[in-house]
Amino acid sequence: MENPVTAAVLVIGDELLSGRTKDTNVGHIAETMTSIGVDLREVRFVPDVEEEIVAALNALRKRYSYVFTTGGIGPTHDDITADAVAKAFGVGIDHDPRAVALLKERFTDGELNEARLRMARIPAGAELVVNPISKAPGFWIGNVITMAGVPSIMRAMLDHVVPQLKTGAKVLSETIDAGLKEGDIATELREVQKKHPETTIGSYPYMNEKGFATRVVVRSRDAAKLAAAKADVETMSAEILAALQAKKAAKATP
Amino acid sequence: MENPVTAAVLVIGDELLSGRTKDTNVGHIAETMTSIGVDLREVRFVPDVEEEIVAALNALRKRYSYVFTTGGIGPTHDDITADAVAKAFGVGIDHDPRAVALLKERFTDGELNEARLRMARIPAGAELVVNPISKAPGFWIGNVITMAGVPSIMRAMLDHVVPQLKTGAKVLSETIDAGLKEGDIATELREVQKKHPETTIGSYPYMNEKGFATRVVVRSRDAAKLAAAKADVETMSAEILAALQAKKAAKATP
Repeated sequence: MENPVTAAVLVIGDELLSGRTKDTNVGHIAETMTSIGVDLREVRFVPDVEEEIVAALNALRKRYSYVFTTGGIGPTHDDITADAVAKAFGVGIDHDPRAVALLKERFTDGELNEARLRMARIPAGAELVVNPISKAPGFWIGNVITMAGVPSIMRAMLDHVVPQLKTGAKVLSETIDAGLKEGDIATELREVQKKHPETTIGSYPYMNEKGFATRVVVRSRDAAKLAAAKADVETMSAEILAALQAKKAAKATP
Repeated sequence: MENPVTAAVLVIGDELLSGRTKDTNVGHIAETMTSIGVDLREVRFVPDVEEEIVAALNALRKRYSYVFTTGGIGPTHDDITADAVAKAFGVGIDHDPRAVALLKERFTDGELNEARLRMARIPAGAELVVNPISKAPGFWIGNVITMAGVPSIMRAMLDHVVPQLKTGAKVLSETIDAGLKEGDIATELREVQKKHPETTIGSYPYMNEKGFATRVVVRSRDAAKLAAAKADVETMSAEILAALQAKKAAKATP
């Protein structure tokens, strides 16, 4: 099998770590990566501190095919992502004429002050990632793709980037509502997982009106292997359910 | 000033990285830490892979006062957090009589099968973290606190743990709605930040009916310094707003 295409997300911003802002970008990027066959393997949140951003970026970009960053590319003093990315790659950073041109589509000369021009500072050698909402672009350098933190803008930037990514075979998944508690199926489910090593079987408890129940998610890049594992999970769940009901009925018999 | 009390969160689970489940635990832990004066400094999400969990745990527990883990302590084969924590600390893991007793409060002897007993496997030397919802406990070893991933249970476990944490001076914060776009205030806001180095000033764009606007958040552990910085942000915003309105009025004058 080919090497899978992998990714990590680096979420940048004090406001996420203080709890003031709740991140929703990770979930969206995760879903998007799954839909195109890219394995999201790691996520990190770091504060607006240059050395933290640089260290995390360098750790992640060496390990994964792509690193997506969110946040810290606005015009204010706490927006330091572009500088941190330039530092991580050891390249310069300056006003990029292509980015300045984009900002001029939105701002008059009077409005395009020094602070706003900061949003045109792009690490040397990076490609721009267009921002259809507020013009100030993200960028793509090496395997790092830097996007805005505002969810609507991040999503628009990601939509722009996705068609340009290497992708892998899509991971297919099937969800089986086992109708039982995790502890009722866990021993047998482990055996099903052993029997189907090229699938990944996850078990996720949830609560319904009767208490805890379980959704089993089977994942694989191979449709036939997925179907075989799913069938075994279904058979197993049905057998355990029948056995538990028989036990109950036996107890109820006077 | 005393060293601040710091924390990190390690979110464990394939389902978060595939996007199937959207994390809400980080935001809750972040808010809770802020409310008790603990600085949340880093968050990582890792998959259900033992070496990834161990490596992340060892990196984080050396750096921060506390590490909270969420997820992977149920009865199924994909629940490997307890083993990973034991490995990270180099201690054994076995059925803990205190944890078995808790499970017996919920499960009959017939229900308490081998799989469910897995939830009583606790790293040697750990204290239990009670779970008022479904009994299976979390645990606390060294500076690592291992909690469930189901949000209602995680919250209950955190409520149990919080009164036992070392806490620091609470970070106070003030939010000023600047009524202006970030780019209109960025240059001056940088000066305000420079003038008030013992505060942290963040700028967060949002959209209202007129387009982008900005909330400025000033944070400090010192109430007087916070108030002084807040006053300067307010004065600055009012001056810029007045100047922009004067400019507009001048233009409108025939």
